[in-house]
Amino acid sequence: MTITQDMIGRVRADFPLITEDVAYLDNSATSQKPQSVIEAGKRFYETENANPLRGLYRLSVAATETYEQAREAVRAFIGAGSTEEIIFTRNATESLNLVAYSWALDNLKAGDDILVTIIEHHSNMLPWQMAAKKTGANLHYLYPDKTGAVTEEMFRNALTPETKLVCMTQLSNVLGRSYDLKTYARIAHEMGAVFVGDGAQSTPHIPVNVTDLDVDFFAFSGHKMLAPMGIGVLYGKKTLLERMQPFLRGGEMIDYVTTEGATWAELPHKFEAGTVNAGGAAGLLAAIEYYQKLGWDFIEQRELELTRYAMEKMKDVPHVTLLGSDRPEEHHGILTFKVDGVHPHDIAAMMDEDGVCVRAGHHCAQPLLKYLGVPNTTRCSLAFYNTEAEIDRFTASLATLRSRMGYQD
Amino acid sequence: MTITQDMIGRVRADFPLITEDVAYLDNSATSQKPQSVIEAGKRFYETENANPLRGLYRLSVAATETYEQAREAVRAFIGAGSTEEIIFTRNATESLNLVAYSWALDNLKAGDDILVTIIEHHSNMLPWQMAAKKTGANLHYLYPDKTGAVTEEMFRNALTPETKLVCMTQLSNVLGRSYDLKTYARIAHEMGAVFVGDGAQSTPHIPVNVTDLDVDFFAFSGHKMLAPMGIGVLYGKKTLLERMQPFLRGGEMIDYVTTEGATWAELPHKFEAGTVNAGGAAGLLAAIEYYQKLGWDFIEQRELELTRYAMEKMKDVPHVTLLGSDRPEEHHGILTFKVDGVHPHDIAAMMDEDGVCVRAGHHCAQPLLKYLGVPNTTRCSLAFYNTEAEIDRFTASLATLRSRMGYQD
Repeated sequence: MTITQDMIGRVRADFPLITEDVAYLDNSATSQKPQSVIEAGKRFYETENANPLRGLYRLSVAATETYEQAREAVRAFIGAGSTEEIIFTRNATESLNLVAYSWALDNLKAGDDILVTIIEHHSNMLPWQMAAKKTGANLHYLYPDKTGAVTEEMFRNALTPETKLVCMTQLSNVLGRSYDLKTYARIAHEMGAVFVGDGAQSTPHIPVNVTDLDVDFFAFSGHKMLAPMGIGVLYGKKTLLERMQPFLRGGEMIDYVTTEGATWAELPHKFEAGTVNAGGAAGLLAAIEYYQKLGWDFIEQRELELTRYAMEKMKDVPHVTLLGSDRPEEHHGILTFKVDGVHPHDIAAMMDEDGVCVRAGHHCAQPLLKYLGVPNTTRCSLAFYNTEAEIDRFTASLATLRSRMGYQD
Repeated sequence: MTITQDMIGRVRADFPLITEDVAYLDNSATSQKPQSVIEAGKRFYETENANPLRGLYRLSVAATETYEQAREAVRAFIGAGSTEEIIFTRNATESLNLVAYSWALDNLKAGDDILVTIIEHHSNMLPWQMAAKKTGANLHYLYPDKTGAVTEEMFRNALTPETKLVCMTQLSNVLGRSYDLKTYARIAHEMGAVFVGDGAQSTPHIPVNVTDLDVDFFAFSGHKMLAPMGIGVLYGKKTLLERMQPFLRGGEMIDYVTTEGATWAELPHKFEAGTVNAGGAAGLLAAIEYYQKLGWDFIEQRELELTRYAMEKMKDVPHVTLLGSDRPEEHHGILTFKVDGVHPHDIAAMMDEDGVCVRAGHHCAQPLLKYLGVPNTTRCSLAFYNTEAEIDRFTASLATLRSRMGYQD
């Protein structure tokens, strides 16, 4: 498609915090929100606010309808077979912990193997370290090559006959590279393992279809894909969810309670204890509607154009090294880099002076950065609403860093 | 103080869903939100949205400041000693589950006793059933008299030398009665037990001071006290929180991660994994500011006036039985009742036709209702923004129910 300046301008106008004053290039941490999402949250509290699911009066029925409409929108957005398989959580982190507590602790035993990659965000690593420690299972790491690439052979070699669980991101929050979960889930299933996909970074940037991927669990957050904070999703296959014990226990998730114990509500409510975040779900619904309106063609093409442009411009700045692949197609807008002799915290602070928002630190992926030999880096992460002018601002700032630190290049 | 019609009118005007069209009398399920709270959420996403805590640029610093300002406001609101003791969760249910998973599972053993009351909401009962089952501890129930009253003697008699944990609500969501947690926590401490207070219903209606109560943990939800859904609080004593393992694991809550394990961030961040709900915290901050502006004198006096008025009016309606005490002071706006021969679901549906929102069912307290011999009831729950006219509407509807069901009284 031909993307015009007019189209880009109209998209940018939808986002109140996307202005010409500041270049917001920290989209992998959290996205900005379109006005329609902000208004959806406001509208919920102004016109439909009531405790959903339990109420027999019209206001509560309206709140329930919005909440369940959001669930159906999520189902369609990720291609799940049933809304029973869509559980609302707080964020991707909680989704992954839910699987660790309610699936892993009850299904793993001493001698079993868990496979994760060294690429993972801490949220897709620490829950499995906990599960391994509590069950006596062994945690194994798959190491990609130094650009982050994983081959089918590498994956097969990392599996053992004892592998019962594989946990892998669909898109690295440091390298920007995406991974072929469909192939890896198929291989894991051939070995009898359960496959958990982390979609926190992929869901905002590429179309996801969990049925096609055939993953067993899939976690993501609303706030990285235009929705408010405080709402996330766990997709799980019904056959697995049905056999699991609940995670959080309280209101809404029960069928019947006695002093001795309880029976659980049907899916998905079994996993949604206490008052749900219906206002957050209303925002997520509006976010999905925004994605649908914009379309993946626009988003993917635009983000690739921007990534390509940024990589070209960064090449012109000396002393800058980009982590990961040389190919823009393998970055999805995520450009993590180092500048010789300049600490990432200084980089982020100087760029802030220049009106550029980037992230400095370990990006919640310390084991990966240690493996790559760069404990701290800076990350510029793009979204479809960014522009070439914002990238120019970023690279102009980038080119001044060493001289501002006193280097005489 | 003298509360004038003008004051009441101005308060009502702050709430977009409080109108003359519908009498919202389901406040114990969730409160309505003042415009200032709704606007605070909107303003956060329009002017400060960034991922807090990790960012070195101004937008992220602003988001962090709002988030931590909310934490300080919560600390002051409940009289905690330090913001390190204030953990943001999703809701009271998650707060209680956090204690069950991270304190109870690691500190209880077979032969220990847990004491809860039969009054508890499922969210303050099911986590302890889970903890008892997993650790081999015994779960004991304290039974109040049939009005819900608990005496110091009853409490002492329910304790054993093996009691290691006591979990008790500060205000019953069914009976409206409040409990003297200060006395019970003192007695529990004398026996060497840890005391968990459930403040989900008390925090919106009475001033709470956890330092004075000397409870070890205290849980509540934002959405019942004017704030948005999706944000809750766990207060915990620092000495206990420091010795506990984290609950959810992922980003933000670590100090250092290797392939072998991790060290944890300082309090309170150790218990806040993943991207926090800063937008929700901004709403909770505005809610607390609203409480401060209004003042407890107004709220407590007004809610007692309304409770007294409603109880007087209900007495005039035949075939209606109120659960709990005869004294308005022991109801805090919560009026749970039965109508001879009319099912609560029919009551709620007929009242909805009359523009009155009440809750029907088991109120997430099935064991209490079974103990009281009324498996299903209807609950009218008042807040300071309700009026005598709304109560008239409720009791007028109440008086017609039996004839609408065909009874010839």
